[in-house]
Amino acid sequence: MLIFLNDRFVTRDEALVSVFDHGFLYGDGIYETLRAYGGRIFMLKQHLVRLQRSAKSIGLEIPIPEKDWPSLLSDAITRNELHDAYLRITVSRGTGEIGLDPSLCPKPTVVIIAKPFTAYPPRLFAEGVSLLTTSVRRNLATALSPQIKSLNFLNNILAKQEASTAGAFDGVMLNAEDRLTECTTSNIFFVQHGTLCTPSVACGILDGITREVVLTLAKEQGIKTEEGAYTSEALRQADECFLTNTTMEIMPVRDVDQHLVGSGKPGPLTRALHEQFRSNLDRFLA
Amino acid sequence: MLIFLNDRFVTRDEALVSVFDHGFLYGDGIYETLRAYGGRIFMLKQHLVRLQRSAKSIGLEIPIPEKDWPSLLSDAITRNELHDAYLRITVSRGTGEIGLDPSLCPKPTVVIIAKPFTAYPPRLFAEGVSLLTTSVRRNLATALSPQIKSLNFLNNILAKQEASTAGAFDGVMLNAEDRLTECTTSNIFFVQHGTLCTPSVACGILDGITREVVLTLAKEQGIKTEEGAYTSEALRQADECFLTNTTMEIMPVRDVDQHLVGSGKPGPLTRALHEQFRSNLDRFLA
Repeated sequence: MLIFLNDRFVTRDEALVSVFDHGFLYGDGIYETLRAYGGRIFMLKQHLVRLQRSAKSIGLEIPIPEKDWPSLLSDAITRNELHDAYLRITVSRGTGEIGLDPSLCPKPTVVIIAKPFTAYPPRLFAEGVSLLTTSVRRNLATALSPQIKSLNFLNNILAKQEASTAGAFDGVMLNAEDRLTECTTSNIFFVQHGTLCTPSVACGILDGITREVVLTLAKEQGIKTEEGAYTSEALRQADECFLTNTTMEIMPVRDVDQHLVGSGKPGPLTRALHEQFRSNLDRFLA
Repeated sequence: MLIFLNDRFVTRDEALVSVFDHGFLYGDGIYETLRAYGGRIFMLKQHLVRLQRSAKSIGLEIPIPEKDWPSLLSDAITRNELHDAYLRITVSRGTGEIGLDPSLCPKPTVVIIAKPFTAYPPRLFAEGVSLLTTSVRRNLATALSPQIKSLNFLNNILAKQEASTAGAFDGVMLNAEDRLTECTTSNIFFVQHGTLCTPSVACGILDGITREVVLTLAKEQGIKTEEGAYTSEALRQADECFLTNTTMEIMPVRDVDQHLVGSGKPGPLTRALHEQFRSNLDRFLA
């Protein structure tokens, strides 16, 4: 495995950062996760735009020009002889003396990890997954906005741990006003009376790129969509439910808090949207 | 500088962690900051108890037995030939494949950085510092409790940046219910009509160790203390205000949001408590 570190590709054993890296000391940094299908990256431009948005939100200047990213990611895929690939870009504040002040760090650290894509087991797509509404709430948007894809992931880790302990695949988090937000690494959708619903950005979520693709595809199909503020009760009454992110695409949800969603089988709209996603994939690849 | 890394002391250049360390990828870890006066550590036991509490809160088992910590910290001081020292213990989840699941990491990473203590400029203690009530709110306690001294510090970094941009020394954050919490690395106290007030733990703060010492000293002096839920208005009406943490001890506040606190000079109770702190210091050193 060859990992891009700052200015060159190094082996995994050489891919090291200082214990004074503010990414390590404070989680001071941002990231993006990308996926390549046959060497072509899904929604490349949108991921790179969001990388810049996250950086700007924390006052971080990425030391690699925007125009160089596509070829750099392509290099990471090629050098690792990958086709279907998972890529993670990490940009941390860099190495500096101890202290919160970002100006202590003269140069951000840039890491690109590229590895073979590992799909979720087909069984999960066929049967759907179990969710738990966690007691862990989603980060307050005015404290650390979920729209910043940052290296501060303990909120999600705590929710994931709570869900795992309860035997669930993942946790769905509420915000401080008891409204649905998202799961630990995915957005959530549900269907009620034929309308495709998903929590709005104002509820405190990451505006996922696959979420956007799914909303676009649904609208193209003439499906009514709604972005709003919903309680967890909405999931109990839903006919269908699914999750979206770059690595899972569209993942059906079988049950929430041990209540079956609809019949407990992936619903017709969920299946149709996933088929639509797959057949339109080419449009979204760079 | 010799840094303890996992099982031995290494040079600063050798103090490296993998880019797969979940401390770097996710800020998945905890820390403590300690201070030594003439080689003796302030409130050693309390800091070590809190280290264990933080670890437990995120389901992290520290690979070094509790009984070994005092001698390890002492070693870090001695090997670096320090007397007045600053120490930072970091324990991250360790190196593992990408993913939120802590079980991906077989072994936590342990780091101890020890360096000469650098005091804040005497001018700050003489004149007091400026605070800004930030638009950045403190993390929701049900999302990521401020009682966990974790490596997720972006909330505080964003508040610190907002304060610095406004020319303030630090920012004081409100919680989701508009109640005072704490500054980015310190607790806040204020005096009103002779009562020493500080936000309660229920407001969503770290229950600082110096905060506890100050409350103890005040009670011993017969000063009335109160831990409660206060609005930012309380600071505007306060007669005195100060901050506490291990490195600053007691730092007077001159103004909040450009309103002078009291006369704008360090108040009598603030000065008396700091003198009391200094003269009682020996009691608190290990």
